[in-house]
Amino acid sequence: MAEKPSHLTFYVVLVEPKNPGNVGAVARAMMNFDVEKLILVNPCELDNVCYARAMHATTILDNAKTFSSFKDAVKDLDYLVATSSIESKTDKRHLRNPVLLEEFSEKIFEVSGNVGLVFGREDYGLFNEEIATCDIMVKIPTSESYLSLNLSHAVTVVLYSIYLKKATIPKRRRPMGSVEKEKLYEFFAQLLDSIDYPAHKKEHTKIMFKRIMGRAMPSIWEYHTLMGVFSKTLGKIKRKQRKK
Amino acid sequence: MAEKPSHLTFYVVLVEPKNPGNVGAVARAMMNFDVEKLILVNPCELDNVCYARAMHATTILDNAKTFSSFKDAVKDLDYLVATSSIESKTDKRHLRNPVLLEEFSEKIFEVSGNVGLVFGREDYGLFNEEIATCDIMVKIPTSESYLSLNLSHAVTVVLYSIYLKKATIPKRRRPMGSVEKEKLYEFFAQLLDSIDYPAHKKEHTKIMFKRIMGRAMPSIWEYHTLMGVFSKTLGKIKRKQRKK
Repeated sequence: MAEKPSHLTFYVVLVEPKNPGNVGAVARAMMNFDVEKLILVNPCELDNVCYARAMHATTILDNAKTFSSFKDAVKDLDYLVATSSIESKTDKRHLRNPVLLEEFSEKIFEVSGNVGLVFGREDYGLFNEEIATCDIMVKIPTSESYLSLNLSHAVTVVLYSIYLKKATIPKRRRPMGSVEKEKLYEFFAQLLDSIDYPAHKKEHTKIMFKRIMGRAMPSIWEYHTLMGVFSKTLGKIKRKQRKK
Repeated sequence: MAEKPSHLTFYVVLVEPKNPGNVGAVARAMMNFDVEKLILVNPCELDNVCYARAMHATTILDNAKTFSSFKDAVKDLDYLVATSSIESKTDKRHLRNPVLLEEFSEKIFEVSGNVGLVFGREDYGLFNEEIATCDIMVKIPTSESYLSLNLSHAVTVVLYSIYLKKATIPKRRRPMGSVEKEKLYEFFAQLLDSIDYPAHKKEHTKIMFKRIMGRAMPSIWEYHTLMGVFSKTLGKIKRKQRKK
């Protein structure tokens, strides 16, 4: 398939995989769909079974980067995608309010940068605090009667979906990077503090803001404009408060 | 997921699978995507490893039908789909002249009957005479650098592709309506006014906000939360201004 030039680099991030065979199978699927960078958080041992399942993709295992904390593992990535089959029952709860895989794959090529595709443990998936760190939650549609895919199957389906879209869709915007994102979220948090936003709602509302921005994927220029609005708003509120 | 009425029954046909783990993983993927009928031609033993990998899908293994010849295995099926990563170098050779998976998944729902999705051996795939028996050959697009998918990965991708087309995808988020949208944009405009935002930049920034929200498509709940933040912010600024 002819590929259009892309300024996206995909990373597969496996959080605490327990089964060496799964890790090997993930590496193979990555090579099948032209994704090279593997990040492992507290993985099982990459034993002979792991290498055997990787088949021709052993260099992906050799070059995998291992971290002991999720936070360190993703600190150089610009955009984080949590995958989970468990969604909120109501869209009042923002944390596990997912975007379906196909919708995500359409949109991701609008941006550039380092994108982490994050997959959880075989048994417990991703924890809420890990999902909260991510910009977006993506769900692979599966049967109500058996939602949970095998880990390497989940990776395969996500990479396939992206591979199909990669071949045709041009990139349009330069997105804000991880540093800008942190600043934007911090300004939003400061805003909530400065308006005496109810403490028990703060976390919920911060995650909602992250999810909205995660879906909108603001460009660097949009980021600067947004930050201008935030800083003027905060300035106004704080000046007034000093006058008290 | 709500499904469109279909007069199609899908069968997964594995020809001479050698690895019990793969057969179990295939059964799990079938249950994930609501396909129940498994046909095995000269399979390996369905041992403990096979059952362990099937997880909750052991009944699919229990109900699998086993045959000693490919011809007998497929004789009650109406439409046979060969899957292979090896295509003809020239389209003069019709045998391995494939249709891409996505095109196939779109079209298959135009027919009815028993459809056999045929997957070959882990090492040699399907032989030419088996492909010749099939009505169509389907190819999953993969990287030129490593064409060949793991068996259960190939089944997973094919079943996922079909599942997407079969199901009518439900709306996950109830989006805000036009009345809410107007209010949200008005509050944003009020915010710009209240922070003495430069007049010549206002229109530009309002349009940016609209574009960001347009891409994020906030739900009605996200709308209410956002409006809460805006009205508290505006309230704070206005109260301070009255005190001047």
